[in-house]
Parts: sequence; structure tokens; C-alpha cells
Amino acid sequence: MRCDVVAVGTELLLGQIVDTNSSWIGEQLATVGINSLLQIKVGDNKDRIVAAIRDRLQEADAVVVCGGLGPTHDDLTREAIATVMGVSLELDDDIAAVIEAMFASRKRRMPANNLKQAEVPVGAQVIAQTRGTAPGLICPVGTKVIYAVPGVPHEMRDMVERVIIPDLIARSGETAVIASRVLRTWGDSESGLNERLQPLINELDRSPNTTLAFLASGWEGIKVRLTAKAETKDAVDTLLNSWEQRVREVVGDIVFGVDGDNMESVVLAMLRKRGLTLALAESVTGGLVSGRLTQIAGASDVFRGAVVSYASDVKHDVLHVSPGPVVSEAAAAQMAQGAKDLLGADVGLALTGVAGPDQQDGQPVGTLCVAVVLPDGQVHTKTFVLPGQREQMRQMSVISSLDMLRGLLA
Amino acid sequence: MRCDVVAVGTELLLGQIVDTNSSWIGEQLATVGINSLLQIKVGDNKDRIVAAIRDRLQEADAVVVCGGLGPTHDDLTREAIATVMGVSLELDDDIAAVIEAMFASRKRRMPANNLKQAEVPVGAQVIAQTRGTAPGLICPVGTKVIYAVPGVPHEMRDMVERVIIPDLIARSGETAVIASRVLRTWGDSESGLNERLQPLINELDRSPNTTLAFLASGWEGIKVRLTAKAETKDAVDTLLNSWEQRVREVVGDIVFGVDGDNMESVVLAMLRKRGLTLALAESVTGGLVSGRLTQIAGASDVFRGAVVSYASDVKHDVLHVSPGPVVSEAAAAQMAQGAKDLLGADVGLALTGVAGPDQQDGQPVGTLCVAVVLPDGQVHTKTFVLPGQREQMRQMSVISSLDMLRGLLA
Repeated sequence: MRCDVVAVGTELLLGQIVDTNSSWIGEQLATVGINSLLQIKVGDNKDRIVAAIRDRLQEADAVVVCGGLGPTHDDLTREAIATVMGVSLELDDDIAAVIEAMFASRKRRMPANNLKQAEVPVGAQVIAQTRGTAPGLICPVGTKVIYAVPGVPHEMRDMVERVIIPDLIARSGETAVIASRVLRTWGDSESGLNERLQPLINELDRSPNTTLAFLASGWEGIKVRLTAKAETKDAVDTLLNSWEQRVREVVGDIVFGVDGDNMESVVLAMLRKRGLTLALAESVTGGLVSGRLTQIAGASDVFRGAVVSYASDVKHDVLHVSPGPVVSEAAAAQMAQGAKDLLGADVGLALTGVAGPDQQDGQPVGTLCVAVVLPDGQVHTKTFVLPGQREQMRQMSVISSLDMLRGLLA
Repeated sequence: MRCDVVAVGTELLLGQIVDTNSSWIGEQLATVGINSLLQIKVGDNKDRIVAAIRDRLQEADAVVVCGGLGPTHDDLTREAIATVMGVSLELDDDIAAVIEAMFASRKRRMPANNLKQAEVPVGAQVIAQTRGTAPGLICPVGTKVIYAVPGVPHEMRDMVERVIIPDLIARSGETAVIASRVLRTWGDSESGLNERLQPLINELDRSPNTTLAFLASGWEGIKVRLTAKAETKDAVDTLLNSWEQRVREVVGDIVFGVDGDNMESVVLAMLRKRGLTLALAESVTGGLVSGRLTQIAGASDVFRGAVVSYASDVKHDVLHVSPGPVVSEAAAAQMAQGAKDLLGADVGLALTGVAGPDQQDGQPVGTLCVAVVLPDGQVHTKTFVLPGQREQMRQMSVISSLDMLRGLLA
């Protein structure tokens, strides 16, 4: 079963809105084992919408058309689908009544063109709207089907979950379950991972039920995604567990989390489990590490706070760093101790480095010195050489320093 | 001139990554008057990539292919383009040398398959990589052209701006000059701005040389983009200057910057001009304001640093906030004074609030209290009620607090 997606709207092509709908639909389809092999954005132009739907129906069993169901002159999805079906549009009295009632309940005058949303291609079935004013459509074309849903994400999601996915499953006769598991890694390149996992990939190539893919996610690391298909949820889980185990045997040292984990949630959970609190001293990252940690709800039971010691004399005066160069492992160690003491935490983590554009203290752009002071007073320091320009270097500093802390807490 | 976009990657279809690249490219193309009428997402499957590129080339003059240039077995863009061109791939020694040097400079072992990135379709021209390891490609096909760029956004953006847009303009034969100017606003809704500017928009509708568009940019505010077309750069600038003046006459109070400005660069420039330094105390934002300010190169001559006082007793002990509730304008004022004193700055800015998921100190989620202490000791405080969940509330807090400081420095 294959279901492609056509997202309609000139604003999507102009970059005024990012099309998140088709990604979301693709995710829902994948979860129930339906392939979505091509997803298209097309503008508010009837001929091009018609052509896009026809093209998709040639290759796919079904197509979801998102958007273009509103009341204005550039909402053309209904007309385009009627053309593809070779039928005309007719006013659906029930929908018209719902739309009129909705405006009445909001005590708002209904502009006349809103009734355009009650027009339905002859032969189409209506997906009742529960949240907005535009109903959806199920439009049979021979043995295939076109679904139309509004572009407003919460209206679209409601119809896809409530009606379209069940309808597609019923049509597919598919009974298999498909699920994915993502292993989050930090510390090797995509090609390095590939090389280490090559024997396993070769083995997977001969296994029809499970696939492995790498998703390079920039300064979030590389994701290794396993996707498995089987008759039951249990059988899928067994496949995923077994292949996850195999992957971890090869690259387990750099796997820091699974699925929804990220580096900051993992580090916070490790600290919480050990009953430890954390204080930071940030220079080169200027608050980014703190900002990322506090994005996790509940960080407050672990994270005490931070000193962003951007000016050198703040390092000396507030954190008691000795006079001298401030981009060094020695300075990082004193920063970590200073933050730990000032903010009353069990663990201190400090970052100092050079984000550019110019060198500092004789250290080139990309230099990052990290220090961790543990509860027993043990001090660990490390110097990283990071690539990239200012923003990339700083973001890489965030994850590199948290990964170092993770290693020390393991 | 029409340039369509093909985004390559199974992860895009599965919804694991949202394709923001094609939107961004669409925006850049629109700015210089090039149409992008269809944008496609296709998975890591060579036949389908080939078919997608061929289809686009039938309708468009050019196609940008994003992604699939990495070193792994599921990076197939190079092979697909070679097939469309009807040529083979050959190793480019210069690219190979750059890739090897990049790994050497990072002191990391280069996996052998990385050299796959040095393979180039015969007849293609290389777009040198300045930031990553995958070079881009310019591939002529008859009178048309395929561009290939990496899927990593910052690498893609660099190549599109530096090479592809100028190349497309040269190919288009367009001799008119097209340029845009973006006015950055904060503090009104899109519909509010639209209403205020309606008379001006009506006037522009009768002027063939200049257009106005609103770009809603979430927690970055609303952008008002003027685009003008004329025979010479001077004539375009005259048009843009004149219409910018007209827009500012209507909504100048909420325009905080132009083009590449953002709220943090504007605030830093205002402080620098007045010879003032800044210290922050952040609670709810946990370092995000500092992180944003220090993203601007040269922030160090203005920005002293910050105390991220996430735990309540850090507010009391380090910043000398009086005992009692910490989400209040009074607490914010003491935080600002405490940071100003501790970090030795001229101006103190503090944020305390509730990002959720739970209320705090009897204040609902979305409450933000901001305080500014000016060099003469004057204290200004304000409470904002912000929408959204945790991340949105925190990001809105960043720009709201900086906009308040901007108003006080004006």
C-alpha cells in the first residue's frame, strides 16, 4: 500500500510557512506500514494541483491532499479534485448548515463565500469537521482514492487519525505492524559509524524484515534508525530488541540515548539518579548549555544555575580564576570549582574556548577547554578541537561538554 | 525562470526530520524573481530520485537537489544525477585532498568511504565546500541545469547564497536588478500590521515595481518585506528607500531592525553606542538571553556576563533577592541589581517567570516579570503574559525582554 501526499499552498513554496503536515502524515503512515514515497508541495494553481494529483495517483494507491479547502478565491483543492474525478461540485446542505451554525455560535457574521466550503465533488464522501469550518473529503477514483484535508495542522491531524488511517488500513488489507527505534550517538562521523557497522548492514541486507539507516543530525549527533516489520507488535519489538543489542555490541560506547532522549535529558537523568546537583560556568557558550538543560521540564531538581563569565575579569573576580590566560584547562578547572562553590552544587562543569572570529590567548578558533569537578573534588579536564564557524563551534561545544560529563557519570 | 526543488531523504518522508531546506530555498528564489512551482520530497532510492529529477527538468529550467551527498550507502544523489546526465562518476583529486586535509586537521581518522564524496559526474562543475565535507555540484543537462547541495542546512545555505543564486540570475538573462529589504517588527500581529498598512498596500498594488509581503516568523516577530525591480541598483535602492520611509511612517514604532539585524544585534549596538555594559540575571530563560547575545561576534565589549539563578536559593544567596516569592517584579528588580553589582556592569536586565508545565508562586504558566536597572539606578519593571508551551514561552521571553531594554535605551 502506498499513499503519497500533496501539500497545497503558494506560501509553502515561498517559504512563508514550512510544510510540517506532510512529514507528520508520513510518520503516521509509516507507523502502520503504509509507504509514502513521494511528497509534493504545489502552489495555489488549479492546473498544477490537478497534474500533481494525477501524477501521484498513477504511482500510489492513495493520495492525501492537504490545504486549499478554505473559503477564498485561492482555495482550489475541491475544484481540482472534481476535475481529476471528472465530476462537478454540488452544495451539501448538511455541511452548509454546520458552517452557518458555527458562525452563529461564535456570534460572527458569515461571509457568503464561506458556503464554498460546503461544495463537494459528486461521489465524494464527507469527513465531518469537528474543530474548524472546512470538512474533509474521501474521493474514490476507480480502485484508488484521494483524501482532502485542511492545511491547519490540528484540523488535518484530527481527520487523518480519526478517519484516513483507519480507511487506508481497511483498504490495504495489511495486517503487519511496522515500528522504528532510534539510537542516538555522539563521537563518530557518519562514515565512521557506517564502516564499523558494515558487517551488520550486510547481514541486514539479507533480512527482509529489518532495515538500518543513518540520520546525520548535525550538532545533535548521528542517529542510527532500525525499522522492523512483522505480524504482531510483539514480534516487531523482538526484532528491534535483538538488532539494537547487535548494534550496541559494535558501537555501544557512543550510544547516549534512545528515541526521544537527547544529550541534556540523559545527563540530567544520570545526575538525578545519583542525587547530584550541577552548576555551570560558561564562557565561550555564553549560556547555551544552561539554556539547553533548562529546556527539559523538571531540570530544577538537578540544575542549580550558572555563571556566564563572558568578560575575563568576571572569571577572575567572581569565579576566582588566577590571573593569566583564560582559554586553558587550568582556567576551566578553576571556573568549574568557582561555580560549584558559588552556586552550592555537587558537580561543577565549565567551558572556555574560542568561537571566533579571532583567536584568543594564542589559541585558535575552535579550541574548547572543558573541566568537570566531581563531588569528591576530583578534577577532569579536556581540550577539544572543534570545526565550524561561531554558531556551529558553540553548539558542538554544548554537546561535547555534556558528553564528557556523561562519560564521567557513567 | 523556474527552479524547482527535490529534497532527498527517507527520513523526510518518515517525518523524522522536517524539510525546512526547500522552504528556505523557495524564499531565496522568490526574492530574486525566480519561480519555484513544485517542490518534492523523495526517499533514498536511486530510481525514484532519477525520476523526480527528470520530471522536474521537463517543467523547470533548473532543479536544486538537496541532500544525499554524504558518504554512506544510502547517499545516492551523485549516482542519480550521473544517470540523468548519462555520464559516469570520476574521482576529483582536489576534493579528495580537501576531505583528507579536513580529517587531518581535526585529528580524526578518515574512513575510506568518505572519498565517495569526491566522486563527480563527468561534465559537472564543483561547488567548493567551505564548511562541511560534501562539495556541491553544478550539472548542465542541455540548456537546463541540476544543482546538488548537501542536506545540512548551514552547508546548503552557504552554497545557495554564494553560488547558485548568482548562477541562476546569470542564466536567466535577467538584466533588471531585483532586491529586497526586510523590516523586522515586534509587538503586533500579522492581521494588525496588515490593517494598519492596508492603504499603503492598495497603493503598492497599483505600482508594478514594488511589492510588500508579510513573513510571520514566530518568536522572531513579523517581517515586512519590500521587493523592488528596476533597471539599475541605484533605482532599486531609491524605490526601497522611499517605500521603507512610507512603511516606517505608519508602523515605525515596532520596527526594531532591517535585513540582517536581529533583536540582540540591535540591543548590543545601542549599548555600544552609549558606552554601556550589560549584566543579566536569568531564571525562567535559563541562559537563553545570554546565549543569544553572545551569538553575535563582538558581544564581549558590551556583555559582561550573567547569573543563571535557576534554584531559588541562588537568587537569594548570590543575587541578594529578599526572601519570598521569586516570580514577581520586585524579585526581578533585585535580580537585575544583584547581577549588575556582582558582574560590575552599567545596566542590569533580569527575567523571572513560569515556563510550565506547572504554576509557581501562584503565578500561571506564561507569566514573565522583567526588570531593567539603568546606570543612574532607575528601575523599570514589567509583567508579560505570554502564550505557548515551555519552549515557545521561553523564546518569547527572550525577545520580549530585549525589546523592553531596547525601548528604554532608545
